[in-house]
Amino acid sequence: MTDQETSVRVETDSLGEMQVPAWAYWGAQTQRSLQNFRIGGERMPSQIVRALGIQKLAAARANIALGVLDREVGDALCTAALEVVEGKLDEHFPLVVWQTGSGTQSNMNANEVIAGRANEILTGQRGGKQPVHPNDHCNYGQSSNDTFPTVMHIAAGRLIVNDTLPKLAALRDALHEKAEAFEAIIKIGRTHMMDATPLTLGQEFSGYTQQVTNALARIEDAFPRLRHLAQGGTAVGTGLNAPDGFAARFAEEAATITGIEFRPADNTFEALAAHDAVVEMSGALNTAAGSLFKIGNDIRMMGSGPRAGFFELLLPANEPGSSIMPGKVNPTQCEALTQVCAQVMGNHTAISMAGTQGQFELNVFKPVMIYNLLQAAQLLGDAAQSFADNLVRGMAANEARIGEMMRNSLMLVTALNPHIGYDQAAKVAKKAYADGTSLKAAAVELGVLTEEQFDTWVRPEQMLGPTQRS
Amino acid sequence: MTDQETSVRVETDSLGEMQVPAWAYWGAQTQRSLQNFRIGGERMPSQIVRALGIQKLAAARANIALGVLDREVGDALCTAALEVVEGKLDEHFPLVVWQTGSGTQSNMNANEVIAGRANEILTGQRGGKQPVHPNDHCNYGQSSNDTFPTVMHIAAGRLIVNDTLPKLAALRDALHEKAEAFEAIIKIGRTHMMDATPLTLGQEFSGYTQQVTNALARIEDAFPRLRHLAQGGTAVGTGLNAPDGFAARFAEEAATITGIEFRPADNTFEALAAHDAVVEMSGALNTAAGSLFKIGNDIRMMGSGPRAGFFELLLPANEPGSSIMPGKVNPTQCEALTQVCAQVMGNHTAISMAGTQGQFELNVFKPVMIYNLLQAAQLLGDAAQSFADNLVRGMAANEARIGEMMRNSLMLVTALNPHIGYDQAAKVAKKAYADGTSLKAAAVELGVLTEEQFDTWVRPEQMLGPTQRS
Amino acid sequence: MTDQETSVRVETDSLGEMQVPAWAYWGAQTQRSLQNFRIGGERMPSQIVRALGIQKLAAARANIALGVLDREVGDALCTAALEVVEGKLDEHFPLVVWQTGSGTQSNMNANEVIAGRANEILTGQRGGKQPVHPNDHCNYGQSSNDTFPTVMHIAAGRLIVNDTLPKLAALRDALHEKAEAFEAIIKIGRTHMMDATPLTLGQEFSGYTQQVTNALARIEDAFPRLRHLAQGGTAVGTGLNAPDGFAARFAEEAATITGIEFRPADNTFEALAAHDAVVEMSGALNTAAGSLFKIGNDIRMMGSGPRAGFFELLLPANEPGSSIMPGKVNPTQCEALTQVCAQVMGNHTAISMAGTQGQFELNVFKPVMIYNLLQAAQLLGDAAQSFADNLVRGMAANEARIGEMMRNSLMLVTALNPHIGYDQAAKVAKKAYADGTSLKAAAVELGVLTEEQFDTWVRPEQMLGPTQRS
Amino acid sequence: MTDQETSVRVETDSLGEMQVPAWAYWGAQTQRSLQNFRIGGERMPSQIVRALGIQKLAAARANIALGVLDREVGDALCTAALEVVEGKLDEHFPLVVWQTGSGTQSNMNANEVIAGRANEILTGQRGGKQPVHPNDHCNYGQSSNDTFPTVMHIAAGRLIVNDTLPKLAALRDALHEKAEAFEAIIKIGRTHMMDATPLTLGQEFSGYTQQVTNALARIEDAFPRLRHLAQGGTAVGTGLNAPDGFAARFAEEAATITGIEFRPADNTFEALAAHDAVVEMSGALNTAAGSLFKIGNDIRMMGSGPRAGFFELLLPANEPGSSIMPGKVNPTQCEALTQVCAQVMGNHTAISMAGTQGQFELNVFKPVMIYNLLQAAQLLGDAAQSFADNLVRGMAANEARIGEMMRNSLMLVTALNPHIGYDQAAKVAKKAYADGTSLKAAAVELGVLTEEQFDTWVRPEQMLGPTQRS
Repeated sequence: MTDQETSVRVETDSLGEMQVPAWAYWGAQTQRSLQNFRIGGERMPSQIVRALGIQKLAAARANIALGVLDREVGDALCTAALEVVEGKLDEHFPLVVWQTGSGTQSNMNANEVIAGRANEILTGQRGGKQPVHPNDHCNYGQSSNDTFPTVMHIAAGRLIVNDTLPKLAALRDALHEKAEAFEAIIKIGRTHMMDATPLTLGQEFSGYTQQVTNALARIEDAFPRLRHLAQGGTAVGTGLNAPDGFAARFAEEAATITGIEFRPADNTFEALAAHDAVVEMSGALNTAAGSLFKIGNDIRMMGSGPRAGFFELLLPANEPGSSIMPGKVNPTQCEALTQVCAQVMGNHTAISMAGTQGQFELNVFKPVMIYNLLQAAQLLGDAAQSFADNLVRGMAANEARIGEMMRNSLMLVTALNPHIGYDQAAKVAKKAYADGTSLKAAAVELGVLTEEQFDTWVRPEQMLGPTQRS
Repeated sequence: MTDQETSVRVETDSLGEMQVPAWAYWGAQTQRSLQNFRIGGERMPSQIVRALGIQKLAAARANIALGVLDREVGDALCTAALEVVEGKLDEHFPLVVWQTGSGTQSNMNANEVIAGRANEILTGQRGGKQPVHPNDHCNYGQSSNDTFPTVMHIAAGRLIVNDTLPKLAALRDALHEKAEAFEAIIKIGRTHMMDATPLTLGQEFSGYTQQVTNALARIEDAFPRLRHLAQGGTAVGTGLNAPDGFAARFAEEAATITGIEFRPADNTFEALAAHDAVVEMSGALNTAAGSLFKIGNDIRMMGSGPRAGFFELLLPANEPGSSIMPGKVNPTQCEALTQVCAQVMGNHTAISMAGTQGQFELNVFKPVMIYNLLQAAQLLGDAAQSFADNLVRGMAANEARIGEMMRNSLMLVTALNPHIGYDQAAKVAKKAYADGTSLKAAAVELGVLTEEQFDTWVRPEQMLGPTQRS
Repeated sequence: MTDQETSVRVETDSLGEMQVPAWAYWGAQTQRSLQNFRIGGERMPSQIVRALGIQKLAAARANIALGVLDREVGDALCTAALEVVEGKLDEHFPLVVWQTGSGTQSNMNANEVIAGRANEILTGQRGGKQPVHPNDHCNYGQSSNDTFPTVMHIAAGRLIVNDTLPKLAALRDALHEKAEAFEAIIKIGRTHMMDATPLTLGQEFSGYTQQVTNALARIEDAFPRLRHLAQGGTAVGTGLNAPDGFAARFAEEAATITGIEFRPADNTFEALAAHDAVVEMSGALNTAAGSLFKIGNDIRMMGSGPRAGFFELLLPANEPGSSIMPGKVNPTQCEALTQVCAQVMGNHTAISMAGTQGQFELNVFKPVMIYNLLQAAQLLGDAAQSFADNLVRGMAANEARIGEMMRNSLMLVTALNPHIGYDQAAKVAKKAYADGTSLKAAAVELGVLTEEQFDTWVRPEQMLGPTQRS
Repeated sequence: MTDQETSVRVETDSLGEMQVPAWAYWGAQTQRSLQNFRIGGERMPSQIVRALGIQKLAAARANIALGVLDREVGDALCTAALEVVEGKLDEHFPLVVWQTGSGTQSNMNANEVIAGRANEILTGQRGGKQPVHPNDHCNYGQSSNDTFPTVMHIAAGRLIVNDTLPKLAALRDALHEKAEAFEAIIKIGRTHMMDATPLTLGQEFSGYTQQVTNALARIEDAFPRLRHLAQGGTAVGTGLNAPDGFAARFAEEAATITGIEFRPADNTFEALAAHDAVVEMSGALNTAAGSLFKIGNDIRMMGSGPRAGFFELLLPANEPGSSIMPGKVNPTQCEALTQVCAQVMGNHTAISMAGTQGQFELNVFKPVMIYNLLQAAQLLGDAAQSFADNLVRGMAANEARIGEMMRNSLMLVTALNPHIGYDQAAKVAKKAYADGTSLKAAAVELGVLTEEQFDTWVRPEQMLGPTQRS
């Protein structure tokens, strides 16, 4: 290792001295966490790091505005926090998810890095606590207990608004285009996986479109409670040591920075001790995952074949499908999508479980909850976009195959119910099935109607909606 | 067995003849299901039976209004359906949950019982298909595939509106009363289960109140999509064989009967093939379960003792607590409540899993989904009411104990941060902890402040909110 | 109401007097629970009631043998307990699952009923505490805290041994029979739902058989820890007030009564405070549910059609499939089975969650855990048996259809890999797919082999195993 | 970017040409996957990459031994594969988890990298298909469909054997040491969170030790089925194109390389189409997570205080606990551990759900299943070790506090049951509670015993086990 890699400086916290890498902005508490939590490799997500930057920036601005933070110190803090927001200091956030359940160590990581960078700006000396102190200045009027839940909401809010929702909307649009393109293609319906009465392929896709439309609505309906920020509650929700007016001013600044209408929590005690808003949003993503699973699985089945499956849809061949079967093409986008859905469902269990475990004034499962929510929101959005781009847009209807299966169906018999009754119609269908013949042949042979009547009554194109009054 | 118990009559369906008990209104298909599905003992919930009555009543009324159902037959159907709504025919619905996944057998159970009763009204003969036919009249313009999801929404909607929401509101009110009653009681806060800065017991309870307030809002926000009824979609969503206008008229009738603003589904294909609205509502209940779990667990801990626990709350002694330890009283309502919450979380997994499994035009996990949703809604409401009635209303604050613990706390040191800084304050707290003395003694001994300063700065009653500007 | 229904007697417990129905054997504590826990309608499962009978019988026998229980009192207790075992007193166990989390109230219900019946035997007077006392005699040397977990293990053990395992074995045997019957039927394989290389239908079913074989092994492997009984630990695990030797003697008696080799827990503290053995067994059932889900879903797909599906299997027509589509037959046993699997997965979440929540010397989620485990074991066994009886045994291979799809497959091209290489073989398959022709025609046209070579190399019946060395 | 970073070469697959970075060993299919699956950032875990190296090494050795692979090509393959095993080529495995559900793209990534590196060894030219072909040589006798499940078992097996089990054993040992160290410390028991009869702190810890002992046994009991390797089944389980004897020889080689007794699957159809062994192992980890959750939560509670909690244990102060409350120390290791447990439970849901979704000959949720299993095994092991090292070993009993609470307990009254009966004893406890006095005072005042009798009968040190026969 080079000197740069091995040289260290000494930082201190209330437990004493720690050696930290000389290149790092972080201080003693971050270093302690690195040593005490050698668990897994999942770093605190970058969305959290950036949101910590936003939170410290908004806090510094609010403190300056409220007159409780020295202007020079405050400006340096703002400059440093902005660098965190912009991702310039990502490597200075080395902590893993599996740390203290309040996220205190990541909050202190941010306090140390931003103070350490602010000190460098003001003095040329990296790190330390002079003139800018991680707690007394950077964390002024804050506690990890209100800061970290605030950061959770900011991180999730930004990801969902800027990423998840637009990507789901792209999928909805792609499905809607296909619903329109397929609106004249009549196909056999399937219920219980068995042949049923006909519908158009466009009608089928309109159901998928509706599912994604609803998924968007569900996420948006869960959003109001995610807008609420715990900031201002400090250690236990009372707001002790926060300047009066801090919560409101902070929320304004956060809204300005993010473009999302964040606002102070209705009840800060709830906002620290429970993360029901995270569980709720996870529930919305879980429901969306169920919707996308169904769509992905249906399209997988409709693409099955080419010779021994449904083969109603021609899916794009994005890659060779098999390392042993030459020429095979697989519905890999369906597989990636449905795997993501299973993951989101698992994340929801972790979040739901963790969400029950608040004790007194604090829920100490914050990192695991937000890690799972951010992963779910990211994966669901990405998979939806990939599915839209790499599968939905490129697929086509196999009209010949669709038409052939539709015309052979025995369930066209349902059109006879109003004319000959359910019991007679059942006999026709069963006879055609047993004889391997057409419905018409069976019906005529049974003597329940004439050929002409059959042709008049059984018209797939007239089986696509309710009975019109004459 | 008596003659009445053993005498039978013959009923038929498209597969042939079946013997059914002479006393029963049901027909061949119900009987077949009894024989083919000897699985568990969970009968289709009574809420579903009643909702089937409502659905058949609304359908008959709509069909009469649309002129597609003979008046006499229609009136007999309405009379019979109303008896189902009123619970008079409950014993004629013997089928279990674990049947065909479309609920077809329960729909046919309703068709058979209502037609069988209508025939008795019109002819004096119980059962049969003349003059009223289970399929051609009772099920006119309907399919199990749109009927059962309609019944799911009606059953869940009625239970939630009439039972779950009012019971949760009762809990919210009971908690709110306590929040007000406790508003002047200052106690030690606890974060990470460790002593923290003070708050009032009323503030703590205001957090619980907020959680239940939010739970109500979440359930109400999930309600809009539960109002949508699949009826009118018939077999695959196209509405084949339903009279034009049926969906709208049906929804009107259902709304009139239930007093809930049901409306036709935006997209009938989605409404048959997916039950995302059920998954969504289950998500709202799952979030509520998380909230109630936290409340129940906190109160359990606050009641712990009497000699070796927190013992901040005096819980009502509703029953002897132990079969071996005389005089023991336990927080049994907390235990019932939190067990119910675990159950609701399990139900949510079952529902979420089943919700992913729609295939093509139909999801065939309808019975398991609605069974779990109804159980969750029932249990959550009941447990909330029981908790309010048998615990919250009867509990009292143990003010002596609360005051003693608050005054001894080392975390009152936090009030010194703005005066002597975090690092100095930490030294005071650590010294008091190590010496087993008071904060004041430690602070004075360390020379960081005077006794007078301590008394001025450290006032629990001034630690309950943000710092006021002078 | 008649006099008999309304007449009451007075019983007492340490909180005072209670009126109980004169006909009932139960006492004051059971009555109190009825009033305090009006939650849901799920009664404590009958398996638990019977196991309470077994537990009280074994305890009385052990106490008699150890010389701590008066002979006459003991004999009356044994007689009464046996009546509980035989189900004669089921109606005297009215309590719901949602009660105190230690099951204390159900334990007291058993103590009261058995003492009350013993008193009747000895004195002609129903109920009361003289000469037989619910606590001092019936519960002698016991606490609910060791009794209820003991009862949990006895109830689950009996159900699994006597019901779940034999029913799963019946399914395994039914599948194995089909694997043998189908061993010569060559079909197209499907991977990613796309056509793949051939296998026999028998090979496919051998995979299902293996899954159920493994399910049996998994349940049996989880059984050892379920044999361990908490009895003897009394209130906190120390065994206070139990006679020395009670744990061992009790386990012997319980083993004799049930025919299952129960034994004393290795560690009674663990046995009261955690129910990991229940979580473990639930995990085995959850894994089995996953296996059965796959089997049920595959068979559902193989039966799909008749005209527009795979239609490789002819499933028995057990009932009319549709209330609107005449002649439709659906895979309803697959639907019941897979719904049960979803339920078992939900139960597992409830159990897993509840299993984490032991606190200090006791886990107070006992009723919810055992309720879910018993339901899962019952449903899984019943559904497996129903699936075997009503579907597997009656289904047949659709050989014509299977043969046709197999012969048309493009994936037979895989047999060419060793001869012409993967890349050339891929070209053949893609050409045949694009041209809609046979593999042979495409291959010859591309000039990569002769017709004779094709016929020699591509033989489905030689594609069913590894390459034999020449 | 430098030339090195931007220069490319052309690789081909059956879909055509692709540009890949010149520095990379990978080929066209890996490159295609990078473009088609821009989903999340979770790379295929390094344990999978290394296991792919092991699998390719074992396959090459088996193929050489069976005489189907050219020696020179084979040796180059072995050398290249070994470099993958050793982690030297990690950066050449850039694919994410969210890809084709068979893991085909990661298998092809391995085939391309190893062939590409072997070609470099033999020719000096990186990449390409000459003389070593990714499919025809590196993948000889293999399919992704048997390879990837084999790799799943190898990766999970190695992680669990080498990491998870030893770390859990370290925790068990640490707990056992404390159980022994604490064996003479008598403390108040707590059931329902309420004071109960006494036990020793050592007895309490013996319960924890037992839980971890059982966790180890459960994981080991799930291991047998994880030893089974799918290799040899090739595309659909028949073994088509694998040389005869390959499965057995491969398993031998894999066992030699890993030191774990891997063996061929009993049924290759099951081994491709289902991953029940993964669900089962996940169930064992889920049960272990439940155990560790309980331990972590108990210790958190026992450490609560210092002034207003149980404070029976003195936990090590590893870091400052609060960014606002000076001197606060928190049970952060408990928090990390219990968060990990919630994560493992979530992973289990994802795995269980995915495990149900095999279709016909293949389960295409392989990557999501193994990603979750590996994460769970890693986190559980790491968290157990961290908990042992950073908390259990450093904690001490607060004997003064423990003794004080024990002596004040009202539940010592239980010792009076055999002497004065449950009902009288209950009166004593209730009087002492109501009066705030000692048990002895209450008993004497009630006249149920003398002071001498009390002192003889109520001895905590004699309440730690069953009643000894005199």
